[in-house]
Amino acid sequence: MEVTNKYIVIKHHIEDSPKESHFEVKTEAIGLSLKPGSDEVIIKNLYISIDPYLINRMKSYSASHNAISFATPLTPGQAIDALVIGRVVTSGNAKFEKDDLVMGVFTWAEYSVVKEQSIIKKLESFEFPLTYHLGILGFSGLSAYGGFFEICKPRKGETVFVSAASGSVGNIVGQYAKLLGCYVVGCAGSQKKVTLLKEELGFDDAFNYKEETDLNSTLKRYFPDGIDIYFDNVGGEMLEAAVANMKAFGRVSVCGVISEYTDIGKRASPNMMDVVYKRITIRGFLAADYMNVFGDFSAKTLDYLRNGQLRVIEDRSLGVESIPSAFVGLFNGDNVGKKVVVLADE
Amino acid sequence: MEVTNKYIVIKHHIEDSPKESHFEVKTEAIGLSLKPGSDEVIIKNLYISIDPYLINRMKSYSASHNAISFATPLTPGQAIDALVIGRVVTSGNAKFEKDDLVMGVFTWAEYSVVKEQSIIKKLESFEFPLTYHLGILGFSGLSAYGGFFEICKPRKGETVFVSAASGSVGNIVGQYAKLLGCYVVGCAGSQKKVTLLKEELGFDDAFNYKEETDLNSTLKRYFPDGIDIYFDNVGGEMLEAAVANMKAFGRVSVCGVISEYTDIGKRASPNMMDVVYKRITIRGFLAADYMNVFGDFSAKTLDYLRNGQLRVIEDRSLGVESIPSAFVGLFNGDNVGKKVVVLADE
Repeated sequence: MEVTNKYIVIKHHIEDSPKESHFEVKTEAIGLSLKPGSDEVIIKNLYISIDPYLINRMKSYSASHNAISFATPLTPGQAIDALVIGRVVTSGNAKFEKDDLVMGVFTWAEYSVVKEQSIIKKLESFEFPLTYHLGILGFSGLSAYGGFFEICKPRKGETVFVSAASGSVGNIVGQYAKLLGCYVVGCAGSQKKVTLLKEELGFDDAFNYKEETDLNSTLKRYFPDGIDIYFDNVGGEMLEAAVANMKAFGRVSVCGVISEYTDIGKRASPNMMDVVYKRITIRGFLAADYMNVFGDFSAKTLDYLRNGQLRVIEDRSLGVESIPSAFVGLFNGDNVGKKVVVLADE
Repeated sequence: MEVTNKYIVIKHHIEDSPKESHFEVKTEAIGLSLKPGSDEVIIKNLYISIDPYLINRMKSYSASHNAISFATPLTPGQAIDALVIGRVVTSGNAKFEKDDLVMGVFTWAEYSVVKEQSIIKKLESFEFPLTYHLGILGFSGLSAYGGFFEICKPRKGETVFVSAASGSVGNIVGQYAKLLGCYVVGCAGSQKKVTLLKEELGFDDAFNYKEETDLNSTLKRYFPDGIDIYFDNVGGEMLEAAVANMKAFGRVSVCGVISEYTDIGKRASPNMMDVVYKRITIRGFLAADYMNVFGDFSAKTLDYLRNGQLRVIEDRSLGVESIPSAFVGLFNGDNVGKKVVVLADE
């Protein structure tokens, strides 16, 4: 049997803000049976995680390209690999059977043909939507957990500022911080998001950064005694303002710098005098660094979910053709919470 | 008995590069006897430590002013407090006697009249010059020790880059790193300093940053496999280039940012993408944070000195009138090693 497989490619490298016109939907015919002796696995993709860091792989050059294996540059015209949950259609590998649910590094496509090493793990149906494995119980949650607990070593009562606080990672950081007993303020890019943070996610306060003219004063207003912990998702001016408002021995956990991904003119120039005199620590991280605490993270987070102590915010789009707009939307603040593209029902 | 006491003041706040004309030598008559019941101590100053961080106290506004007690702003026309070694002339305090050698926070002056809390400790003559207490066995050494060992957690064989490497702290960091078995490259601002680093202090390599046009490429040349540890004394472009050349899990210890003290236009904009993807830690510190390891630092450093494993580089000027030029010279790269002004013989 043969099917038409739609997949998404970049037409060329993307050097600044991504636009839908930079992408193309391609089609190919693929057979759903494997040649004898093949060890490949054919997967029908169900849920695709849409993540901003991919923009760095779409550039012709980025400091990130040589840093780690999964940050290698993408090739225009070629399928784009990403975190995906799918169902096995055909397997040439004894470890996987038809109808297994699997999560792995597959492609922005309806079907992916992969080797065993691309499959991270098999999944079972459970009481929550499977997409939680892409977000709150996956790398978004692990980023929040590792970046907040492991890097910042937060203590009850400390003041925590989260940027892009309604985003896939930020909203979880803020909720973890509240559960620990911190005072938490988030910023986001619309009044609707601010309301979500304050009224549904339990943030102590929140503001729309687009309505502020002097971020330094803004943060002074929300943190008159200073910030102990800044969880940075955006870089740029917000990072500068946060550093200026840190307390002594403050910690900045740098998860991402989305404002700098598409405009190096926005690169932050934090005042290093503050860094010295206030003994600030600024530290970058990747979720993958915290696989050693995945068990703890997963157990605690599942407990919180089962106890109704964590709200899960997902933002879903439908169909492979929606991937470019879903991705581009990340840079325009369109998404609320974890962005997932749904390709098919389980 | 009365003496004429010369002391140095700033005429006004200094907002950019300091010049000798910003300072003034003032005189006052002081009595060398104390009124009955006074608990003061009159000290004849012998050696004055000349430190760049004072520039931040000379500004009308600096991020450092509110950070810690000893960074308070200086008042034009008033005596300038600084780390000094002196000899007690008259004491109204039972803990101190005439002729005691003491180190403390006194003034840029020939004589200081102080209270007990300004005296850090009594000193004994020992086999090394007393000025070592201001440099290698004092805050310069402790800065090097705390900032290198405690912040960077260096391991044998790691690559270490030190800026302002012939300065009071940098030269000690480089020597500690060599004693640990690291590969060490320093930068400085003259060929003479470069020769000192390579031929007398045992650095593996060194370069004159003034002769380099592209610091990023320069560091790539000296560290083809990247930098594990950057000990930053200067900030600015050098910090940017170092971050671009760090290895994964690199550590940046920020001791000072002298290029940014007098020109905020030079503020560093390190690429935060590097910070994230290479999981770099950038951390500021003050020597005072490491008083808890002073015993270890002092014992180890004395051992190294007694074994002839550490070279001590001091740069001395003579007389109270030389203080302004000694201080201004720090910002022009005039000093080699620890800058001390000698006021009188022991």
